This record gives sequence, structure tokens and C-alpha cells, in this order.
Amino acid sequence: MSKAQAIEALVKAIGKENVITEHEELVCYSFDATADVPSQMPDVVVTPRGTDDVVQIMKVASQYKIPVYPRGAGTNLCGDTIPLKGGIVLRTQKMNKIIEIDADNLVAVVQPGVVINDLNTAVAPFGLIYPPDPGTVATATMGGSVSECSGGLRGLKYGVTKHYVMGLEVVMVDGTVARFGGKTVKNVTAYDMVKLFTGAEGTLGIITEITVKLIPAPEAKKSMLAVFSKLEDAGNTVTEIVRSKVIPATMEIMDQVTIRTVENFAKVGLPTDAEAVLLIEVDGIPEVVEREAATVVKVVEKNNGNIKVAKDDKERDGLWAARRAALPALAQMKPTTVLEDATVPRSRLTEMLVALQNIAKKYNLMIGTFGHAGDGNLHPTILTDERNTEEMKRVHQAVDEIFKTALELGGTISGEHGIGMAKAKYLPLEFGEQGVEIMRKVKRALDPDNLLNPGKMMG
Amino acid sequence: MSKAQAIEALVKAIGKENVITEHEELVCYSFDATADVPSQMPDVVVTPRGTDDVVQIMKVASQYKIPVYPRGAGTNLCGDTIPLKGGIVLRTQKMNKIIEIDADNLVAVVQPGVVINDLNTAVAPFGLIYPPDPGTVATATMGGSVSECSGGLRGLKYGVTKHYVMGLEVVMVDGTVARFGGKTVKNVTAYDMVKLFTGAEGTLGIITEITVKLIPAPEAKKSMLAVFSKLEDAGNTVTEIVRSKVIPATMEIMDQVTIRTVENFAKVGLPTDAEAVLLIEVDGIPEVVEREAATVVKVVEKNNGNIKVAKDDKERDGLWAARRAALPALAQMKPTTVLEDATVPRSRLTEMLVALQNIAKKYNLMIGTFGHAGDGNLHPTILTDERNTEEMKRVHQAVDEIFKTALELGGTISGEHGIGMAKAKYLPLEFGEQGVEIMRKVKRALDPDNLLNPGKMMG
Repeated sequence: MSKAQAIEALVKAIGKENVITEHEELVCYSFDATADVPSQMPDVVVTPRGTDDVVQIMKVASQYKIPVYPRGAGTNLCGDTIPLKGGIVLRTQKMNKIIEIDADNLVAVVQPGVVINDLNTAVAPFGLIYPPDPGTVATATMGGSVSECSGGLRGLKYGVTKHYVMGLEVVMVDGTVARFGGKTVKNVTAYDMVKLFTGAEGTLGIITEITVKLIPAPEAKKSMLAVFSKLEDAGNTVTEIVRSKVIPATMEIMDQVTIRTVENFAKVGLPTDAEAVLLIEVDGIPEVVEREAATVVKVVEKNNGNIKVAKDDKERDGLWAARRAALPALAQMKPTTVLEDATVPRSRLTEMLVALQNIAKKYNLMIGTFGHAGDGNLHPTILTDERNTEEMKRVHQAVDEIFKTALELGGTISGEHGIGMAKAKYLPLEFGEQGVEIMRKVKRALDPDNLLNPGKMMG
Repeated sequence: MSKAQAIEALVKAIGKENVITEHEELVCYSFDATADVPSQMPDVVVTPRGTDDVVQIMKVASQYKIPVYPRGAGTNLCGDTIPLKGGIVLRTQKMNKIIEIDADNLVAVVQPGVVINDLNTAVAPFGLIYPPDPGTVATATMGGSVSECSGGLRGLKYGVTKHYVMGLEVVMVDGTVARFGGKTVKNVTAYDMVKLFTGAEGTLGIITEITVKLIPAPEAKKSMLAVFSKLEDAGNTVTEIVRSKVIPATMEIMDQVTIRTVENFAKVGLPTDAEAVLLIEVDGIPEVVEREAATVVKVVEKNNGNIKVAKDDKERDGLWAARRAALPALAQMKPTTVLEDATVPRSRLTEMLVALQNIAKKYNLMIGTFGHAGDGNLHPTILTDERNTEEMKRVHQAVDEIFKTALELGGTISGEHGIGMAKAKYLPLEFGEQGVEIMRKVKRALDPDNLLNPGKMMG
């Protein structure tokens, strides 16, 4: 059975207008936002209009044994949407309806193609928010975000995507439709399949509907910038704030390389002689915000930091513009940006920051580090040029050492970017071969012919 | 290969003193806290002293193809610890060490035999709490609680067990030891096996170590009793409190049957002519507590309720004593108490309460309903006598109808008690046969000979 026959079957099943085969268009689906991974052309791109179309597509894929790669906006950072073995890219763009906003039960039901920001815009009039906020909220889709279990800036207080996914409709590889979970806060009816599919990176099934938890929007916020001349003081401040029973909504760090690059790029007034800055935001009802901000100020000053509290929304926006500039500022320095997300327990943050500085020196690389200090989730960002093969060799050695260090400190190789093509080879470092084999058993049980996003997390 | 040989192998592997074979002792493991399920004697009970012993036990069990039933305190309510097919009961009582309290990272690491309350006692000096609080906290173990994904009174605001399990060590059926997750808030390294084993009811592996999230203890609490002469008013109050953006720590309901029974049993001063009472507790920093309590009072009064705010700890304890008396009070009315946990989206609570009254009338049964109104998680409690076969037939018909109603209202057949023997037959009602089959594939992949807690959730 040929690929041409399969494409014909797809056209017959979901209509010519939902099947893309033109070379120029297929090129757009041969890569994603990830640096330093191979690209690969798909044979065909399909754009289902709903669950029924997905069922039809999976039936054709199963019949012809052709791989399927679900794709939202392609903003992931582990090469997860690249069609590595060729086959069918399944775009969710036409499945972009917000099906229901159920404010009384604090839930929303969406199709996978809904952009994260659009959901937040839709629930705002009800005084609610959907908290997960990866850097890509303005373009990333809910389906991609659930499949990758996106993190973001608010993990410490509000958790990440998996903490908000309550129910899923999934199309299995053979076209079977299953629904797990739902609108109830409590649900212990058999295995937690909702969490198994969340973060499965499209390797177990195609997510076609998502029920998420919403929470009341915080009434007030206060943002602060803390400047430290010593990196250790910044690290200790993070631990001590939490020890003071204050859980900020966000607690972000930028190291000196990042500070200087951001300042050079955006002229936002960051102190370029500081070894680190922390950007901290507390939120809640006004009384809580005042109290928690006062505690933060006290802890920062005790740890030799200078702190500035944003007086109004304009100052607040200014602070966050600096943080948002971190990645683009670093990215414009060199042609290639290798962005990692090694994560350690919060108390080991200082050790990890120091280790990253040493790794940069050892391999003679420029590494800017920023990230979610409150979660121990750092983004060491290696600035390089993939055409420089000698330097790329050192980059890969440095990345190996970053992951080993994170694991030695009791952390994990991926806090929020996922595994995909980029990190599959590191899995045994974290779980041992036997741990990975347990996961492969689950994968083989649900996708015996390895048709769902092959060549990624589970090989 | 005989069972006698297997027992000999167990004695050799973990020592005679950790293997129980006396008939009188085995009887104690032939049942658990669940009513209306068959009992069954095990062939042997083993008490491993640590992970290594569990590995040895699983190797013997695999070699001799003998079923293994992990058991904490046996307090579950779905027959999950009954050794239905005979074989080995694996008690976790000797694995009862709190391995680490890591206050800086807000986590604790425990062995499965640690009693939930003991963990809370141990973390209290750090100003921290482990929030999941099933009614059995004083006796239930962490291992059992994680395996059943216990709920409790604080689900609405604080979530349930699965929201607190961050890492697990698990011994697989063949004796392989695997570790998943850990101390980091963010972790998206491959499949979320932690959540798959949480709530798996011991059917996928034996949990030997648990890392849980802790949170700062709330500084203040305020408890309130709201009395309603109409059931609908109570239901509407629950929805409207949440709509007012107040998320109470607990929001419990008791219906008239329960109120009268409790009052008769414990003389706590409950109004026996009320159709329903709500017990509401808000917590947090004092300013928040004051504000939220004021909102609750306003909403209750708007919905025709009379509200009493506990003035001190003594009054608070009095209110909660009434709630805690609900199950024992109902249980002493008749020889057999069939306690269910059908759960609906919060906004459908009133409909469910009315449906339960109608079901009681239709089948001429005494049903007292209480439970976690804020979660839509009700405990309709059928008071009966299992020796009365005619009445038991009506009980089973009523239970069928309770589950069907919960599903029709968008709910689930189990909010917090789990599936086990008691509810396995209802799974297809919620997932369809094909949905259950997806779960069975996972089960077969990890336990191909069905040796882990057979005869329960997955057959």
C-alpha cells in the first residue's frame, strides 16, 4: 500500500480542502521552534475539523501504517512536532472552538486548537483565569500545551498545566474515541488517564477536547525587582522567602550575562554590575499582597539585596518587559540559541547557578541563565552558531554536563520543555534503562506499531 | 509449584518473623472496612521491612504466579485490600519511617506504612501541613491513601491526594525497582508515571516510597453552621459562595435524615426540622478569613439560611464534632451501612440531592446523605441489613440508580472511595467498554499475569 493511496484515502475521508500536499506548504511543517535538531518534511498535512475527522485520519494512518504527528502552533522546544519519520502532520488549527465556559463549576471546555491567550480572554469577564502561562501564550495552542504539559512563570504558586487538566477526549491510534475525567474536582474512577495523556507529547493518542480548571483572578498584584551583587545572596533569598511562608506568584531570576544582554538590547535600566536580579510578584487580595510584599522586602534586604517595588502598573510593566526581553535579547546575540530547562529542588538553586557558571568557563561558552527561580526551573541558554562544528561539540558536552548536574542535585532533565527528540537520549540518566522500559511498555500497549509521534520520547 | 513452596521461599527471603501463616491471624486480613463485599482468606501475610524485602516478595510471587495484595490499614471503602483470589497480603506496617522533612523545598519523603496523621504531626513544627484528609487520617497509611487517591473534607480548596504526590518509588511485579518524579515542582520528564500509580489501587506496582508536597499551614480559620429549611436553598448557597470567588477550605452538607440521626446520637444541638445544614470553614491569613466569612454570611442569608459563626475554638470543635458524628451516627442505626461516593459537578448538587431523596422513596430505603458539597462529592449512605436479602436487592437497585444519576448529571461513579471490588462492574457505564479496554491494556502491559490485586478495578 503506497503513501499516494493513503493520501487519496485522507482526501476521501476529510475533503481535499483539509489535506495539504504542496511542497512549498509542507516545508513549513518540517521544523518547529527548537534549535539544534534535524528537520524533516512530512508527506502530507491534514487539518481535521473535529473529532470525527481525527477518527477518520487515524483509521487511514492505522490501515496504511503511516506515522501521525499532532501539531498545534509548533512552539515547543524539544523538536516534538517535527515529522521525523515522515508521514502525516495533524494540525489542530480548525478545531479552535471554546465549547463551554462553566463559571459555576470553575471549568472551561475547549478544542485543542484554541490559543491559550484566547481562553484567558474569554474567561476574564467571569473574573476567572487559566493560570498556566508558558512564554508562548499568545500563539501556543491548548492541545500543544496539554501534550507538552507547559509550565511558565506561575508554577510555584499556581502549578503547571497538569494541575489544571480535568478531562480529556482522546482519539486512540486505531480511531477509538475515549473520554476520561470531567468537571468534578474529585474523580478516582480507575486509572488517571487524564494525567497519562497530559505531557505524553502526542505519543499515546490525539487530544480532541480538553476540560480545564479555572480559578478566581487575583484582585491585586505587586511586583518587585531585587538586585544582588552576589549570586549566592539571590539564591538564598529565594529559599528564605518560601521559608517565610510567602509563596509568590512568580519569582524569576536573571544572571549577569542575561542582565547585561537585556540591558544592552532593551535599555530598561537594569544594573549591569549586579550578579543577579530577582523579579518577584505577589498576588491575592490587597491585604495579603501588602503583607507578603513587606516580608519579601525584609528578606531581600537581610540578604544584601536592593529592592525596588513597582509603584504603579507602568512601573510593573517595565519590570516585566525586562524579564520578557531575556530570551529575545539573548537570542539576537548569536545565530543559534540552545535553550535548556534543567530543574532542581528550590534549595539547590544556588549550587546549580554556580555549576552553570563553571560549565560555561570549562567549555568556553557563553551561557546566559534566567528562569523560574521559585520552581528551581532554570533556563541556561547557550549562545552559539550551529555552523561552527567545533563549538557545537563543546555545546553538546556542556548540555550533557548540565543535565548530569541537575540530576546530581536531585532535579530532573526537563522542568517544562519536554523530552521530544532533544532529550530522549538522556531519559536513562534519570530513570535507568529499566525505568524507561516501564514507560515503553505503556507506549507499546497503546500504540503497538509506534505510529504516534515516532522518533521522540519513546523512540 | 505449590503454595507451600512459595511460602517456604518467602520465609527464606525475608525471615520467618515477617511471614504470617497462622489461621487465626490470617482471618484478620480476609476483610476490610467495606460493607457488602465478599471476604476471602489469604494464604499468607508478609510484612516487608523495606524495599529490598518487597523486591524479594515480588520475585517469589512472580516465580510462583501467586497474587499479591498490598495493604496499609485496610480502611478503604471499595474492598480493595481483600485477597479475593487468595495469595499474599503484603502489609506495609514495618515500612513506617518518615525518611525526610525538607521544609525548604516544601516536601516530605515517607515510607508507605506511615499513618497520615503522623506525617501531619511531624511537619507541624515547621508550620507546614499535608492537606489531604480522608475521614480515616488517624489510622490510614500514606501508601493506602496514595493507592486509593484519598479525598476528604478539603478537596475544594486544597485538592486531593494526587495533587500532593510528587515522587514515587515503586516495585514492579517482576521485582524491578523504579523511581519517578521527585522534589521539583516542575517535572515533565516523559510520562507522568507518578499520577498513573497514584489511585491505581495497587494493581500496577507496590509503592515503597512517597515524596509529597507540603504547604504552609493557614494562620486562621473560621467555621460556620448554616441552617436551611429547604434543601434547594442549601444547594444554591454552595454554588453562589463559589460564584462570589470565595473558595472555602471545607463546605460540608448534611441532609435531614443525617441531621436527625446525628442529633439523636450525639445531642449536639442540630435543628432537627431543617432540611439541610452546611458546615463551612474558611481559612488563610486573618484579613482574608474575616472578609471571606462576611461574604459567606451574606450569601447564606440571601438564600434564606440562618447562620451561626463559631466564636472560639470550643464552638468550632462542637460544629465539627457534629459533622464527624455523621457516619458513626448513621452506622449505628442499622446493622449494615452501604456508603457511596457518587460525585457531580458542584452546580448539579441540588439536583443530585433531590434525586437521592426520590431514590430512597422509590426503593423504600433509609438513605442519609452527607458529604463534601463544595466538591459535589456526596455520601449517600444506605442503612440496611445484609441478612435481609429482599431489602438488599432493593439496595443494589438503588445503588445502580445512584451511579446512573451521577453520570447523567456529568459526574463520576467515584469521587474518592475508588473502584475496587465494589464498583468495577460500573466502569463501562462511565467509560464505555472501549474506554475500560484502554485501561486494561495499560494494566496488562505492566502486570501481564494479573498478579497485582486481581479481581478488583481491572478484573
